[in-house]
Amino acid sequence: MAEEPKDAPKVLRDTDDDARTLARVLLRSSRSAALAVLEPDTGSPFASRVLTGMDIDGVPVILVSALSVHTRALRTDPRSSLLAGEPGKGDPLAHPRLTVITEASEVVRGSEQHARLRERFVRRHPKAKLYVDFPDFTFFRLVPLRANLNGGFGKAYLLTADDLLIRSAAREALAERESGAIEHMNSEHAEAAGIYASHYCGAKEGNWSISGIDAAGIDLSAGDQLERLEFSTEISDAGALRTVLADLLTKARTTNG
Amino acid sequence: MAEEPKDAPKVLRDTDDDARTLARVLLRSSRSAALAVLEPDTGSPFASRVLTGMDIDGVPVILVSALSVHTRALRTDPRSSLLAGEPGKGDPLAHPRLTVITEASEVVRGSEQHARLRERFVRRHPKAKLYVDFPDFTFFRLVPLRANLNGGFGKAYLLTADDLLIRSAAREALAERESGAIEHMNSEHAEAAGIYASHYCGAKEGNWSISGIDAAGIDLSAGDQLERLEFSTEISDAGALRTVLADLLTKARTTNG
Repeated sequence: MAEEPKDAPKVLRDTDDDARTLARVLLRSSRSAALAVLEPDTGSPFASRVLTGMDIDGVPVILVSALSVHTRALRTDPRSSLLAGEPGKGDPLAHPRLTVITEASEVVRGSEQHARLRERFVRRHPKAKLYVDFPDFTFFRLVPLRANLNGGFGKAYLLTADDLLIRSAAREALAERESGAIEHMNSEHAEAAGIYASHYCGAKEGNWSISGIDAAGIDLSAGDQLERLEFSTEISDAGALRTVLADLLTKARTTNG
Repeated sequence: MAEEPKDAPKVLRDTDDDARTLARVLLRSSRSAALAVLEPDTGSPFASRVLTGMDIDGVPVILVSALSVHTRALRTDPRSSLLAGEPGKGDPLAHPRLTVITEASEVVRGSEQHARLRERFVRRHPKAKLYVDFPDFTFFRLVPLRANLNGGFGKAYLLTADDLLIRSAAREALAERESGAIEHMNSEHAEAAGIYASHYCGAKEGNWSISGIDAAGIDLSAGDQLERLEFSTEISDAGALRTVLADLLTKARTTNG
């Protein structure tokens, strides 16, 4: 667990699995986030809006233009922070949100990692296809160092990087199968995404499809909506994916029926 | 106009009155914003969510708990930044947003300024009444230094502090009449707020009321919604308020009828 600063008032709750899951879902289901960087030249904090995706190790990813202030800032100083969780309706402070303190690392174009991120990002944000290959657009991985979760009034938690990362040894093997598995599910089991979304994420009916699979869960998309189904435990063997997906479907159908 | 940094690519548009109005409306109609500060001890950027209000000179105001990271940060280093403009539906980057680089100044409890901000803030956020008087809650004015407006893809503008501040000599005189004028309008001309909201802000029908009046415009509230009607020019004589409000009503009725 992250250490509480010595001078901090004792308002933090003990970080439990519910808090960890909430933090992961907030971060992994975000379409955009507020990014804080240090403005070049002045060193002032600078907040802007960025599209967000996720790498297979749970590291959040942003796609940004080299012409923007935040990109120049991150190339000067990698220290950064992401605020995930939209306020939505009602009291903005009643909605949970997550601050992740991050260190940015630019992704080299032409690398295997770039190809993987590009594919995952475009599946999450289909419109990004229009500019992802522009020479002035670049990906940064924002590697979590620690995080502050605010689950609503009086519900504050500190989280470690470990709480937000995906450690499974099957990460790469799953990434290799991801595209095929998604195509298979969305065509041969087209009803599954909608069942996952409504049963596990409480989402409304819609034209749901699977837009991402990793060792820790599934991303579900319907138009502008994005939901995250977290597995109860990370998949540690890529061969188990089919069973995990089938069991989730069976469980949802049994519970509903 | 703000000077463009010498090494910046020429992607900025010339700042015109439309851009200034959009920036003002984004900032002045915000209920919450992302706040970027420098984390105490580490100096890392730190993004969090805050409720926002506005002082009579156009300076954005936040009400925060002394127990939070951002309050400790602002007390250590006043450099800060606000991101206003919610992503809403559709592509998050298609929605306009404004980054304001600010310098925080804590408002002394018991001061006249505190009393005025408290009244204006609670009218904007009625639920804040529950905690605004807690001893660990405090107001900061976030004085704009400059701003970056992003009006959607390829629509970037630099703004100066002047573009965001209200300079009218009638500010204080209007503030003294504000509460009475709002009560009068909301009781004697209850239909006005709805007409303002729909005609000038394109808002849907709802239970609209006036929640703020200053030299530059009117804040309109309906439940969780907040709209901002900017006057075409600042009111420079408090005695003209009645005429301005009546003319806006007449104009809306004439255009609609």
